[in-house]
Amino acid sequence: MKSDIQIAQENVMLPIVEIAERLNLEMDDLKLYGKYKAKIDQNAIAQLDTKDDGKLILVTAINPTPAGEGKSTVTVGLGDALALAGKNSMIALREPSMGPTMGMKGGAAGGGYAQVQPMDEINLHFTGDMHAITATNNALSAFIDNHLQQGNELDIDSRRITWKRVMDINDRALRNIVVGMGGPTNGVPREDGFDITVASEIMAILCLATSMEDLKKRLGNIVFGYNRKREPLTVRDLKMEGALTLILKDALEPNLVQTLYHTPAFVHGGPFANIAHGCNSVIATKTALKLADYVVTEAGFGADLGAEKFLDIKVPELGKAPDAIVIVATIRSLKMHGGIKVADLKDTVDPSAVARGFANLEKHIQNMQRYGVPVVVAVNAFTQDTKEEIAVVQESCKNLGVICEIADVWGKGPEGGLDLAQAVIAATEQEMTYKPLYDPQKTTIEEKITAVVREIYGGDTVVFTPKARQQMKQFSRHGWEHLPVCMAKTQYSLSDNPKQLARPEGFSITIREFVPKIGAGFIVALTGDILTMPGLPKQPAALNMDVLEDGTVVGLF
Amino acid sequence: MKSDIQIAQENVMLPIVEIAERLNLEMDDLKLYGKYKAKIDQNAIAQLDTKDDGKLILVTAINPTPAGEGKSTVTVGLGDALALAGKNSMIALREPSMGPTMGMKGGAAGGGYAQVQPMDEINLHFTGDMHAITATNNALSAFIDNHLQQGNELDIDSRRITWKRVMDINDRALRNIVVGMGGPTNGVPREDGFDITVASEIMAILCLATSMEDLKKRLGNIVFGYNRKREPLTVRDLKMEGALTLILKDALEPNLVQTLYHTPAFVHGGPFANIAHGCNSVIATKTALKLADYVVTEAGFGADLGAEKFLDIKVPELGKAPDAIVIVATIRSLKMHGGIKVADLKDTVDPSAVARGFANLEKHIQNMQRYGVPVVVAVNAFTQDTKEEIAVVQESCKNLGVICEIADVWGKGPEGGLDLAQAVIAATEQEMTYKPLYDPQKTTIEEKITAVVREIYGGDTVVFTPKARQQMKQFSRHGWEHLPVCMAKTQYSLSDNPKQLARPEGFSITIREFVPKIGAGFIVALTGDILTMPGLPKQPAALNMDVLEDGTVVGLF
Repeated sequence: MKSDIQIAQENVMLPIVEIAERLNLEMDDLKLYGKYKAKIDQNAIAQLDTKDDGKLILVTAINPTPAGEGKSTVTVGLGDALALAGKNSMIALREPSMGPTMGMKGGAAGGGYAQVQPMDEINLHFTGDMHAITATNNALSAFIDNHLQQGNELDIDSRRITWKRVMDINDRALRNIVVGMGGPTNGVPREDGFDITVASEIMAILCLATSMEDLKKRLGNIVFGYNRKREPLTVRDLKMEGALTLILKDALEPNLVQTLYHTPAFVHGGPFANIAHGCNSVIATKTALKLADYVVTEAGFGADLGAEKFLDIKVPELGKAPDAIVIVATIRSLKMHGGIKVADLKDTVDPSAVARGFANLEKHIQNMQRYGVPVVVAVNAFTQDTKEEIAVVQESCKNLGVICEIADVWGKGPEGGLDLAQAVIAATEQEMTYKPLYDPQKTTIEEKITAVVREIYGGDTVVFTPKARQQMKQFSRHGWEHLPVCMAKTQYSLSDNPKQLARPEGFSITIREFVPKIGAGFIVALTGDILTMPGLPKQPAALNMDVLEDGTVVGLF
Repeated sequence: MKSDIQIAQENVMLPIVEIAERLNLEMDDLKLYGKYKAKIDQNAIAQLDTKDDGKLILVTAINPTPAGEGKSTVTVGLGDALALAGKNSMIALREPSMGPTMGMKGGAAGGGYAQVQPMDEINLHFTGDMHAITATNNALSAFIDNHLQQGNELDIDSRRITWKRVMDINDRALRNIVVGMGGPTNGVPREDGFDITVASEIMAILCLATSMEDLKKRLGNIVFGYNRKREPLTVRDLKMEGALTLILKDALEPNLVQTLYHTPAFVHGGPFANIAHGCNSVIATKTALKLADYVVTEAGFGADLGAEKFLDIKVPELGKAPDAIVIVATIRSLKMHGGIKVADLKDTVDPSAVARGFANLEKHIQNMQRYGVPVVVAVNAFTQDTKEEIAVVQESCKNLGVICEIADVWGKGPEGGLDLAQAVIAATEQEMTYKPLYDPQKTTIEEKITAVVREIYGGDTVVFTPKARQQMKQFSRHGWEHLPVCMAKTQYSLSDNPKQLARPEGFSITIREFVPKIGAGFIVALTGDILTMPGLPKQPAALNMDVLEDGTVVGLF
């Protein structure tokens, strides 16, 4: 069996200019980054504004195994299959972060015969967006510390600076640091810490901004900390929103690449799916909808997190709901939800476990249908899957009136996704009325969270810690109550306990604390400890990486 | 009078593909970064290897005023003037750092009618080299801290880790920090600090590497700290040189841009001129010599620092000495060396002060002649300069048998540099024999430093602190004695006291401490406190920066 990098290296890419031509984009609309990557010029994007939107297909998943359900692979393969079916299709994916690439083995550009290309560059510096986000985030940190140093006119409380520095590397030693040591010429000592770049609010802002002006407005809205009267302080108070926008100028433009089968793909923006909303950029999705008749995109984690946030946070900014939702499941994860241990999944054939585990998929199907969007189930095929196990899923879906197709795009490329593509095309032709979960303007934070917990997670009650209660009071004083909520919860269970598999009921969710992201425009609700700076393993993947004299990349995957 | 950014914005650039064509480079030899920037593919560079070298012209300066002598401006203008004189010329400049751009007003892309373009992009992310260097440096830091956390097989002494983290931003609060706080899962607490990216040894390595293999070798050689037996530890001990090379792969390729008058220019690599050697990359200079008949390049600070390091550190790696050296002086700086206060320079006409200050220029002329290279003096014209003052310099140069030309490239573009260009062409046609200051293999560190102090600075004695003496003993045990020295000294005086102007004599230089840069391949000798992380001023330039809805950049300069 060939590795991802072998398949990728054997593939011949087309010049990105030719890919762009298929979308009726001209040379002047592009900013080339080498031969196979390009940004779309923002002025070209502005000119697309009057065109009709294509159909939007959201790919999400059930609560996954630790190895993931293969959402990106299905997203890429479905885009390719739609093209094979004669449709003008595009893909809109998240952008991977370089940091984790050096840590654990594996990139984030699909897999097998469903990959975007050039995967080595996409997983390293790509077009520099991550670097620009890092620079913007850390410029703000420097401005804050400089303000403290130069007289502190805003009366910043150095103990209540909530803005952290970031770096695109797994580096646990930077989680908790003390800065400003070394005497009066070297800053004001205070506690600080680094998150990984994708956890930066700047990333969430870039992904939700609808234009350069909107980007600047959101950057100005960032609350970086509090003064000694405990009033929130913003980037606008520092007068730095223009400079931060300038550093992000190019990063706002979506990056065009191609799949192994030359389907055009935007890979742009990649916020965390726990402390942020976990989808690629609004600008990329919006532009793709103007350029193609079918746009396939994905949301991070399972549908309880990624799809909920896509539908309640991204859709209002996008101004368009999905025309169909594809829920990805694997036979392995269904067996896991049916009680088989993760270590035994590979060697266990057990249709009855699949049947028990279906309860998880069923809940996600019902959740997505609740939004009024047609649903298709895609079983991401593994070579070990048996006919009997697959039949269980298909039969159970049929009982719910939902189409279920096998997607073998990893092993077979677009041919392996043709049935799924046809089902998706049919789904997008159904009548639909999008119903959001809540109206953010007309609900309190507590009401929003209660709606998510009851209607999406299937829980009974929400417990707020005293700290969370106090924060909700403060937020309503600050006028932040109308913002949507962004739930930070384990992706492995519908509840906040990763061990509660399948379809738990009667549980309660504890909201430990809130993190206001006023620039991004949402309030993060933490249900547990969320790690925003990963660490490296004992044997990092970097140990195997190399580059040969002629530039050939070795060991990246 | 128009500002630099006004002149730049009124100028119409040619597509970089056309600029490359003039150098006989084809589309396939380029990696485009938008329409006006390109990297030269390393395979295309390899194919140039058998071509003859053009003439190399090094631009340096006398000890400058705080505003600088305008070396970059003269470098760009001379390149343009050589083109106007019908020569196939190229420019090889250092790459500016984004951090300081946000702090003090001003970029580093020449000025007036002698600029490289697109100056806004060159001063921001450019082609991502600075980001790649930052990422490489900090990946190494993460690997070191991870090694400490995961059992510390190499027995790293956490108090003797010399490798610091870096960031491309002026941020004094990061100079001295404590990392690894927060308990056992969050790393091993230790003192650390951030330098600005251009001060990273990675930057010096990138600029001295002659190929991908050489880059990897140098990265492997980096000494990042010591074990508890006080033995040096290298990146090769961590087995991380392959991964670090991979992160730097694209950054190794030189960046092609153009001047206002469409002369091709490489802008690549920008190490500090105090704790590093202060010249653009060997690969860019080497490639330019293959592509053009005349290559104009510059070295940082005055000739006592920049040119000395160019001649004793860079030339051996480059395998070619300059065919002519241009020493830039301004009437203002000559008057400063003649005793006029900096605040009064603008409004003082004083030919006798120019005559007194000439002693500084004279010493630099003699120093450069000592290397066996023909010298030309360029007076970088200012509107306030008087004929009488200029006559003093020209007469004094004549007495030394050195040509002195006025360069008004800032005000007039290439026409203003034609006389200088003719003088330089004539100089490169003189017979020359390059004589390095010392043979690094046959001299001790003490002998090398003594040679620089006596022959270049004009001092009498060198004082080594007890610490420096002890380090020299250690270095000779480690086998580092054969490396060249890299002096870190004030740029404002030939001595180590910035207040000793003109041509001080009989002084002694104190070597406080050494910093071994084994990857870069030199030993830094510190003569005082060198700041490797700048701070922001009370009113940073960033306050005036903005970007409009259509992408127009405001307030960058």
